[in-house]
Amino acid sequence: MIGPVDSHLRKQGVDVLLENSVEAFGETDSGLMIRLKSGGTLDVDFAVVCIGVRPESRLAQESGIKCGERGGIITNEHMQTSDDNVYAVGDVVQTSCFFSSTPIQIPLAGPANRQGRIAADHIFGRDSTYRGTQGTAVVGIFGMTAAMTGLSEKSLIRTHTAYEKIYIHPSDHAGYFPDAQQMMLKLLFDPKTGIILGAQGVGTTGVDKRIDVLAIAIQAGMTVYDLEEVELCYAPQYGHAKDPINMLGFVASGVLRGDQPIIQVDTLSSYSAESLLLLDVRTAAEFAAGHIPGAKNIPIETLRERVSELPRDRKIATYCKVGQRGYYATRILDQLGFDAANISGGFQLWSNYSAHDNNAID
Amino acid sequence: MIGPVDSHLRKQGVDVLLENSVEAFGETDSGLMIRLKSGGTLDVDFAVVCIGVRPESRLAQESGIKCGERGGIITNEHMQTSDDNVYAVGDVVQTSCFFSSTPIQIPLAGPANRQGRIAADHIFGRDSTYRGTQGTAVVGIFGMTAAMTGLSEKSLIRTHTAYEKIYIHPSDHAGYFPDAQQMMLKLLFDPKTGIILGAQGVGTTGVDKRIDVLAIAIQAGMTVYDLEEVELCYAPQYGHAKDPINMLGFVASGVLRGDQPIIQVDTLSSYSAESLLLLDVRTAAEFAAGHIPGAKNIPIETLRERVSELPRDRKIATYCKVGQRGYYATRILDQLGFDAANISGGFQLWSNYSAHDNNAID
Repeated sequence: MIGPVDSHLRKQGVDVLLENSVEAFGETDSGLMIRLKSGGTLDVDFAVVCIGVRPESRLAQESGIKCGERGGIITNEHMQTSDDNVYAVGDVVQTSCFFSSTPIQIPLAGPANRQGRIAADHIFGRDSTYRGTQGTAVVGIFGMTAAMTGLSEKSLIRTHTAYEKIYIHPSDHAGYFPDAQQMMLKLLFDPKTGIILGAQGVGTTGVDKRIDVLAIAIQAGMTVYDLEEVELCYAPQYGHAKDPINMLGFVASGVLRGDQPIIQVDTLSSYSAESLLLLDVRTAAEFAAGHIPGAKNIPIETLRERVSELPRDRKIATYCKVGQRGYYATRILDQLGFDAANISGGFQLWSNYSAHDNNAID
Repeated sequence: MIGPVDSHLRKQGVDVLLENSVEAFGETDSGLMIRLKSGGTLDVDFAVVCIGVRPESRLAQESGIKCGERGGIITNEHMQTSDDNVYAVGDVVQTSCFFSSTPIQIPLAGPANRQGRIAADHIFGRDSTYRGTQGTAVVGIFGMTAAMTGLSEKSLIRTHTAYEKIYIHPSDHAGYFPDAQQMMLKLLFDPKTGIILGAQGVGTTGVDKRIDVLAIAIQAGMTVYDLEEVELCYAPQYGHAKDPINMLGFVASGVLRGDQPIIQVDTLSSYSAESLLLLDVRTAAEFAAGHIPGAKNIPIETLRERVSELPRDRKIATYCKVGQRGYYATRILDQLGFDAANISGGFQLWSNYSAHDNNAID
């Protein structure tokens, strides 16, 4: 997901240094010097250090109130601390994860506000409870929006939770209406039940809207099958008759029903050329402009007449620009008995991924 | 809800003629003449007649396939017509209401698309079913957005369904961030269970987002209590730590819990001066610039010291600009034993309503 953000930052003239860190700060006549781990130095006017949030819980600790491993004040569902008569809310507390109820510490203004109301309710005798923090967040970056809700792939891997994921690249509104902007959406879901676990989006307009919609879907315990059926605002300047949210549902449900086998960009390197054929079904011109190394090009329009060129002893990973033609190819090949799967997110995701694969999964 | 739309249209130079209709069209040398029911005439270059959608179901009717009262082809949940082997989808069909399962005919592109997929699924042996049409719609009007989802107040009245309603006027994002724009939201909900029945919004940016979020909440069967707890994207340019969606939940839940008695603008005329005191708790300057006729002005800051001026033998309807100070006043008076209620939507809604009350409830 960081690919589009990284490209956008560089286009704005920002030097992005990855896989690096600061070894030392030093003062110079003109300002500040930063010595990098990689060996070089930077002369800067000022430095902003963003290294996370640490709770200031000393008062609680010195009072004998229990705090968690990361320093957050431990609270129950009513926001009571280990001393029943003391409540704590906001960035300083450790609460529970919306999904797993395991302890987490996420400093967000929305949860802080709700916790304040719940503590006040409970103090005055009401049985209000906190549902846990879902982790919905958004950031604006030079006119670009990056947003997320629920669990990230990183946290799913860390907690050994089974998941499936898909990527789509829809436009924010109907393509025939001026100023449609492409966005990138990632959906994480339970491979058995289809329950939505998390989502991330990057783009310009309409990203915060889709992540808010998915935040509610998660809150309601909805599945990817529910997303197929949701009925959202449609006029051409606002969305699509098949909104990106519906599309997430169609694609994810297609994967779970077995209609649309997919293969992930980040697994391609684990296959040998003998076990996997990469099949690019875009036009010859698109192929010539750039493709995944080793791929064979058969444009989707000619696929049916050229299937004899394809091997039956290997898996075939189809792809196009973002996934639609690759999906058609997978359907055609599947019905003809080939072992085919569509590369989720297509060439666009592969391009992002291969340019940033030193950052691994985010 | 039409108040802001009507004002916006007039500001763009559009003449809006209400409580009127066309009696006849006639040709003139320069173009077209329209004779109005009110007596006058209009000379125009062209006329656009928007009088609803009628299904073109003649083929079905002539084939003996059953159609509804309004001409729509009757379909079951699999989109089968009265002839099992014939399916119908789109604007031509009569489907069922998401809430009541009663027959409805709403021509919308989103439902049409879903119906097409469901019919195809069923033809190929899958048990896909249509969940009914929720009625989510949006329209852009010279940069303004008007959107709705679920049942309107009009349809709730027509079907004798019990409901409660609230109005809020939040800004689309945090007020301290540039370009915050006020919107108007209306929420309709079940007065016993709090289940959300419908919502409407009018404003500029962020209206379609909030209605989409509420469309999902309705799809999930959520209550106003759930809206209090939802966790949405927050950064100051996108929303609020207490998003308008949370605010709808806070206000509606406050009404149902009895914390925040409200009184509706459209019921004020049913009270006599002997049975109701209108209490304007805005500043003296705001009051002087315009107020509800007959209202007494006690600014919220001085309310506690001036309560002796208030009657205990009458209901007191408090109000401010949009509702927050009116709410504080209601809480203060309630705790002092007065029979107080806050006018939902405040002076702003009253102004809209009194300027358009010939259109009654919409």
